[in-house]
Amino acid sequence: MNTTSTRLDATFAALADPTRRAILARLASGDATVNELAEPFAMTQPAISKHLKVLERAGLISRNRDAQRRPSRLEARRLAEASAWLDQYRQFWEASFARLDTVLKELQPKTARRGKPARR
Amino acid sequence: MNTTSTRLDATFAALADPTRRAILARLASGDATVNELAEPFAMTQPAISKHLKVLERAGLISRNRDAQRRPSRLEARRLAEASAWLDQYRQFWEASFARLDTVLKELQPKTARRGKPARR
Repeated sequence: MNTTSTRLDATFAALADPTRRAILARLASGDATVNELAEPFAMTQPAISKHLKVLERAGLISRNRDAQRRPSRLEARRLAEASAWLDQYRQFWEASFARLDTVLKELQPKTARRGKPARR
Repeated sequence: MNTTSTRLDATFAALADPTRRAILARLASGDATVNELAEPFAMTQPAISKHLKVLERAGLISRNRDAQRRPSRLEARRLAEASAWLDQYRQFWEASFARLDTVLKELQPKTARRGKPARR
């Protein structure tokens, strides 16, 4: 089964790791081989390969099967799906930030007043 | 440590489960107790409680500690953070969808032509 829900499970699970998010960030600047990916992360190739497998199964990257170098490529559509899911809650965080903004504005005049010469 | 990276780890891990996503969707329509949450999901209260703990640790919900009913409340700020992270990749999926659009447009005239009377 490859429903939206199972895809979201795989996408979010794959994103719940700092190395895998860093790999995606690296691939955003261009395709890279396991070698090229392993270097900046100071990780062994098998460790990177494991992460790539998780990313590939989740559909977040694709790999050239034929070429010896098998460079990995970022596939952004699953990220779009995850973003669309999160977007359902946009009204909630916007309301939350608006409330924070109100609190900050209520605090501001008091702070500003401190800077003015006191009336005695 | 509560850096953006560790928060994103917890947020994405919490979202990688269909029941937890469904609980958030339910809470989007109002605060709810464990009882109220357990009913529509046909799950036991302990099972729901486990999911709520994961959501709470990730900062995706808050729970009223004092009240006996301890209703859960959606906290959307961590979702905003996850959405902002995904947004870095917007240009990639938009490019990907644009390419798909081009392919579809290239296919369209052929299909449209079929509907028109053929020139003989």
